[in-house]
Amino acid sequence: MNRLNKVEVCFSPALFRFYKDKNAIVIVVDPLRATSAICTAFEKGVKKLIPVGTVDEARAYKNNGYLVAAERDGYVLDFADFGNSPFNFTPERVKGKTIVYSTTNGTQAIQTASSCYKVIIGSFLNLSAICKWVIQQDRDIIILCAAWKNKFNLEDSVLAGAIIDQLLESEKYYSICDSALAAMDLWTMAKTDLVGYINKAAQRSRLRDKGLDDVIEYCHTPDSTEVIPVLKENYIVELRNTHHL
Amino acid sequence: MNRLNKVEVCFSPALFRFYKDKNAIVIVVDPLRATSAICTAFEKGVKKLIPVGTVDEARAYKNNGYLVAAERDGYVLDFADFGNSPFNFTPERVKGKTIVYSTTNGTQAIQTASSCYKVIIGSFLNLSAICKWVIQQDRDIIILCAAWKNKFNLEDSVLAGAIIDQLLESEKYYSICDSALAAMDLWTMAKTDLVGYINKAAQRSRLRDKGLDDVIEYCHTPDSTEVIPVLKENYIVELRNTHHL
Repeated sequence: MNRLNKVEVCFSPALFRFYKDKNAIVIVVDPLRATSAICTAFEKGVKKLIPVGTVDEARAYKNNGYLVAAERDGYVLDFADFGNSPFNFTPERVKGKTIVYSTTNGTQAIQTASSCYKVIIGSFLNLSAICKWVIQQDRDIIILCAAWKNKFNLEDSVLAGAIIDQLLESEKYYSICDSALAAMDLWTMAKTDLVGYINKAAQRSRLRDKGLDDVIEYCHTPDSTEVIPVLKENYIVELRNTHHL
Repeated sequence: MNRLNKVEVCFSPALFRFYKDKNAIVIVVDPLRATSAICTAFEKGVKKLIPVGTVDEARAYKNNGYLVAAERDGYVLDFADFGNSPFNFTPERVKGKTIVYSTTNGTQAIQTASSCYKVIIGSFLNLSAICKWVIQQDRDIIILCAAWKNKFNLEDSVLAGAIIDQLLESEKYYSICDSALAAMDLWTMAKTDLVGYINKAAQRSRLRDKGLDDVIEYCHTPDSTEVIPVLKENYIVELRNTHHL
């Protein structure tokens, strides 16, 4: 690990083709709420998550007897067992299970990145765990923000800044990417009062309008878990449970 | 003008389809260096600019006897009369003339926005002039950052923040767009030492490596001109010289 590796941030899945590098590790971030829910699911003992992009795919899995967590625009789909609040993933409900998972933005972002070397799932909950692991890998990193229907998203960007901050501090990484500089500056502005800062974000308002904002504080609590969810073929598993990683 | 109008920022031409609104006024920003050069050209008396997207189009105009300002990645194209440093546009050279203009990112951004209600050209040089004019129009506004080959760009974003700051201060505009909030925060961090802040941007390094960074201070001097370049059909003219606006 003598050479420095590069870290970049892509603010929207629609821009990913300009950043794409098949040898890079991609960290997908969507802290409100998809990637926080995925980290929580593994923390609570889920065995495997199957991310699916479309409502039709999620319905097909349900019809085949799978447990399905699926929402669009914050609302649980009518055929789903539950939505993507992290609080749904209780040990009683999910331990040892395989769950099909589909959200408005997060699962599409995961699929966008799937042709790269490796895709891991990042949130504030596993912030230091993913950074510690990434620093040992000696690979270029792309942080892919799930965004909101492909539009720039504040909480994704602030989390990207927090990740970059740790990577640069390790002195194994550099960045000349303007989006990384901007993300770090947003993190600098946000970090002393993270929930207060995120309160102004559009997604925060969307969740509040739907009465779904009970998760804000939970989703912005750094380092509550050590799990590192990773995409393996077409499903997500916990890194420690894989043999090839 | 009783109702509030909306202002949004689009960080890349590749995202414009998610923001596009044919009734909106689009402000294209690319302060290093395309839109600063366009403002300078009109300040120095250019009659008309013809923005063209491709090198082939620029060459065809040159072969037809036009004066051509064209560059790619900061380098003047071999057939062009000059590149896109604002300093090229001296009164002796450009006064009363029609000039064909093509750059790496700026002219493509202008064409991306061309189906909207109106497209105007913004830079730090005409910052307050465009804001004052926009506030009188009672229209939704999209600020389109030219970006760098579709990647997020720091100086474009900071300028977007400076524009939004003035629009919100007028109390005629609102924004719930996360990219607008981020742009304003970047402007807040940058404004006390704008050139110092921009020094860390990737485009600043690209220009420095090519010895083209003599324009940085000039391009970040707010309010040095009152000109408002506007797209009219396929060319750019000065707003005060049009009858329909």
